[in-house]
Amino acid sequence: MAEAVKEQQVEENVPYRESNLYRLRHSAAHVLAEAVLDLFPEARLAIGPPIEDGFYYDFDLGKDERGKPITFSEEDLEKIEARMKELIKDNARFEQSSMSIDEALEFFKDQPYKVELIQELAAGRVDEDGRPISEPVREVGIYRQRDFVDLCRGPHVNYTGQIKPNAVKLLRTSGAYWRGDENRPQLQRIYGTAWPTRAELEEYLERLEEAASRDHRRLGKQLSLFHISPLVGAGLPLWLPKGTILRETLEQFLRQAQRERGYLPVITPHIAKIDLFITSGHYPYYKDSQYTPLDIDGDLFLLRPMNCPHHIEVYRSEARSYRDLPLRLAEFGTVYRYEQSGELAGLTRVRGFTVDDSHLFVTPEQLEDEFIQVVQLIQYVFNAMGFSDFRARLGTNDPESDKYAGTPEMWERGIAAIRNAADKLGLNYTVEVGEAAFYGPKLDFIFRDVLKREWQLGTVQVDFLLPERFALEYIGPDGEAHRPVMIHRAPFGSMERFVGILIEHFNGAFPVWLAPVQAILIPITDRHNDYAREVAEALQASGIRVEVDASGSRMNAKIRNAQLQKIPYMLVVGDREVEAGAVAVRTRDEENRGSMPVAEFKELILERIRTRSLEL
Amino acid sequence: MAEAVKEQQVEENVPYRESNLYRLRHSAAHVLAEAVLDLFPEARLAIGPPIEDGFYYDFDLGKDERGKPITFSEEDLEKIEARMKELIKDNARFEQSSMSIDEALEFFKDQPYKVELIQELAAGRVDEDGRPISEPVREVGIYRQRDFVDLCRGPHVNYTGQIKPNAVKLLRTSGAYWRGDENRPQLQRIYGTAWPTRAELEEYLERLEEAASRDHRRLGKQLSLFHISPLVGAGLPLWLPKGTILRETLEQFLRQAQRERGYLPVITPHIAKIDLFITSGHYPYYKDSQYTPLDIDGDLFLLRPMNCPHHIEVYRSEARSYRDLPLRLAEFGTVYRYEQSGELAGLTRVRGFTVDDSHLFVTPEQLEDEFIQVVQLIQYVFNAMGFSDFRARLGTNDPESDKYAGTPEMWERGIAAIRNAADKLGLNYTVEVGEAAFYGPKLDFIFRDVLKREWQLGTVQVDFLLPERFALEYIGPDGEAHRPVMIHRAPFGSMERFVGILIEHFNGAFPVWLAPVQAILIPITDRHNDYAREVAEALQASGIRVEVDASGSRMNAKIRNAQLQKIPYMLVVGDREVEAGAVAVRTRDEENRGSMPVAEFKELILERIRTRSLEL
Repeated sequence: MAEAVKEQQVEENVPYRESNLYRLRHSAAHVLAEAVLDLFPEARLAIGPPIEDGFYYDFDLGKDERGKPITFSEEDLEKIEARMKELIKDNARFEQSSMSIDEALEFFKDQPYKVELIQELAAGRVDEDGRPISEPVREVGIYRQRDFVDLCRGPHVNYTGQIKPNAVKLLRTSGAYWRGDENRPQLQRIYGTAWPTRAELEEYLERLEEAASRDHRRLGKQLSLFHISPLVGAGLPLWLPKGTILRETLEQFLRQAQRERGYLPVITPHIAKIDLFITSGHYPYYKDSQYTPLDIDGDLFLLRPMNCPHHIEVYRSEARSYRDLPLRLAEFGTVYRYEQSGELAGLTRVRGFTVDDSHLFVTPEQLEDEFIQVVQLIQYVFNAMGFSDFRARLGTNDPESDKYAGTPEMWERGIAAIRNAADKLGLNYTVEVGEAAFYGPKLDFIFRDVLKREWQLGTVQVDFLLPERFALEYIGPDGEAHRPVMIHRAPFGSMERFVGILIEHFNGAFPVWLAPVQAILIPITDRHNDYAREVAEALQASGIRVEVDASGSRMNAKIRNAQLQKIPYMLVVGDREVEAGAVAVRTRDEENRGSMPVAEFKELILERIRTRSLEL
Repeated sequence: MAEAVKEQQVEENVPYRESNLYRLRHSAAHVLAEAVLDLFPEARLAIGPPIEDGFYYDFDLGKDERGKPITFSEEDLEKIEARMKELIKDNARFEQSSMSIDEALEFFKDQPYKVELIQELAAGRVDEDGRPISEPVREVGIYRQRDFVDLCRGPHVNYTGQIKPNAVKLLRTSGAYWRGDENRPQLQRIYGTAWPTRAELEEYLERLEEAASRDHRRLGKQLSLFHISPLVGAGLPLWLPKGTILRETLEQFLRQAQRERGYLPVITPHIAKIDLFITSGHYPYYKDSQYTPLDIDGDLFLLRPMNCPHHIEVYRSEARSYRDLPLRLAEFGTVYRYEQSGELAGLTRVRGFTVDDSHLFVTPEQLEDEFIQVVQLIQYVFNAMGFSDFRARLGTNDPESDKYAGTPEMWERGIAAIRNAADKLGLNYTVEVGEAAFYGPKLDFIFRDVLKREWQLGTVQVDFLLPERFALEYIGPDGEAHRPVMIHRAPFGSMERFVGILIEHFNGAFPVWLAPVQAILIPITDRHNDYAREVAEALQASGIRVEVDASGSRMNAKIRNAQLQKIPYMLVVGDREVEAGAVAVRTRDEENRGSMPVAEFKELILERIRTRSLEL
């Protein structure tokens, strides 16, 4: 899956970016670049950061006689990896220093990508990893091992020997555009991974293999959950009936939980005048991730990138009093964000997705209590999914960056509210600077799946800014107008992404309450079909999702097919079952429960559904 | 409401366009134009057709000194109506004749709009009412009464005296663009109505008044059902919580009915590549009612005008066998159609609306039976709404028109299938040439509301064309590939429009099962608030939608407010009720049911909900 969270916690309570593992992988990336230059002296270096579970480095090998970019072969990769291991064993020191802009431009004059970065650093546009910043610099950070010198702020390990030769591995190579811009040169990216020990590397490689077999795109096809049609367009999945049933079951579950907690449903259009997003500040802020506006009779309309402004317009549709607050508006609201076609993947990277979105309009006095209740709802939802392995992350603004709106006082109040709420809940969380929304700080919930991959799911955000921008008001008990605070929240996040993660986490074998088909009747021969249909109807009358396999295949083929479809219960019926009013129950994990009366099976499965059991 | 059906049945089983009433109104329009020319000799005539419940005529009175179009005043209207009555009593004969194109151009040379129509008639572009046709004509139809001559194919009554002077009335005047095109001159439209008798006119005027008081835009605001925000855009309603609850209750009702009938839910995106609609033929066919395409990385995408092609792509996502058919795919699918801003009205004329859409893919052998079942579903839905006054209309292609696709054989088979199904059901229906979809014939269900206004709601369509265009196939029992037939159907039609009609039909006083708030607790004083909340929670636990009015207003004000909100039951609680564990039940129609135990009320209301009773 394409989009796991960037942060990874290896050492207890240390964010990934500050961890030893991050340093190790950053160092491995430098050794990779050194090895490539040893073997391909003409290579031009672009950038090479650590990433989740490893690192990469981008190279330009020039073009062949037909003008196509030269690529690395599998054999090249083997040679490079072997050279890396030699360089590691040579145990050179990583030396930190700095250069003035002029020195650096001179030193890197044969490395055009580095020159571009240095020029932008000097102008105050990017850091050494090509990430945008705001302050111009006078000198740039440099790291050196042996003769290899790279533009870099670090940190690194002290010696190359701290990387374990048997715990580092190059994985694959692929094309990547310089600065992610398809109008810039195409580079060759080498992906690698590095771990503290060989055992950890091996475990990781096993997880990679397992992940490939659980790929939700493969399972989505096998289980008929969703379909990408070239005529409809990439990144725009069609939910097939079984996927729709799964998704709607999740939606119904959350709707019910929300109804019990006083949320009110709304339905708002997928488009709006651009003026709405100019008022909110989403436009031009999110311009690059939005689609081109539509012109309708001279007015410009956008496919909405966010649901918040629509819900704000619902708030503004009537005069509000303190008696109306908290007003909790909820919608499964679809939003549209631009993604490059090369980035699109199944359900997890799409161009339109549906957020289980809610916006709470509260008085300042209600903020903390409502925030706590939202966190408790997220915990309830995760618990119902059987997600036990998750953590919280407080994302704050980066005071150095200009990508955040609002006053410092707003940020302080928002962060304080989240901290207070988290403390009252006894919640463990890390703090990540620069992970906030543009309008306010947020608390994200990060789930670790059975393959130990981390996924950002639920989010709760505190917002003093949009109420200001839209001049929201309520009349207080004092008869005066006051400004409400907004809480933005989504327990699942995106329905598309959440279902993609669920598919991989459960390997397609969903808990009974979520399974699109919960049981299948398998008549041994055609003469048992009528009885099978009768049993199916009796179960369907209780709301159980049941199919009958009357295909005429042999029983073993029917069972194999049901197992491939990961249907929780197979109910085999032959003469004996017809006579006894029974079904012979087998589970998808090949357990044979023997014959039981239909009523008994019905009670069993209804209990599993009611309790949202993970067991069969 | 803006968009009632064009046809109206006055004489039993005669379509409106062939009725005496249509002739009467068409004749009144000519007398209106004659009266205007008598009083405003400089007026230029545009067109003047009969419409539902009346007629209009468009005039150009020239411009005033500031360049603004001259309009009719209220007094002008009175004078014109008086002059019409004189002209009616004069009892002139309507004489039919014809002119060659050249004669007509000469005769109407001072009437530029007529000249434009004559030129287009000669070129084969429009008929005398400005409607597009395809065949060029050599002569044009003419009607004359006294000195007044109009371009017209008729039919008319024989003498002006057949119009009853006391059964004709001018209603209002408004601006209207020539040919509905805002870049063409602005004309002055006078609306009038005419009826066979004075009693019918008076009854109609009463209905108009009643309709104005029931206007769903007014009630939508009063009952907080929906809101149009200028920042979001005209024609894009926001469903407020109470409107959403009403809409979702309807959706849940239909979902359940569909589940029981073997429909499968799907969810598909609101946009798709233009290629999809080029393949289906919706583009460029519906080009004028579609929004401009979005360019994403060089591919053009449309906000979809129809859901059918998306469902077809679901069909095509897997190889299909006869065992998979009928495949009934259902979605509450949102579509977008261009409407001029002047045409937009509340929920009934919008720019994006959600269709309770379903597409059934069937074998030719299954067609008739599936069609019958769809009609029965529509009858079931109408029945649940308490809609007893409805009729069916078979819309066929007009063989003279080029707006229909497909072969004559396809049309014959489709029409025969509908006729056979309707006959088997013993359904009364009229046949309307030119009311088909572009891809096939359809059976529409037209509902007459309490104000006797007709609304086209449910529709069922038979389609041999799209399966052809998309090369749909299934493998038959013979092992060969066959082409399925498609049925398109929507019982509600558009959720927006349906709810708009429901609001007016019920005057906002919805049946209990649909009411957004089903009961409200009214504590007599603040000290009864706790008991009221307790009762509310007990009822909510059974899924009943209950509110508590703890506003601190006086009891009578609370009751008045609940009546304005048209809440079915008001549950007044004071000392006596607290002591007895009871509620004093009043209905919104001011019936006092006296005190009853909470459990008894709960049983009563649950029974009303379960049976979808129209009674309280």
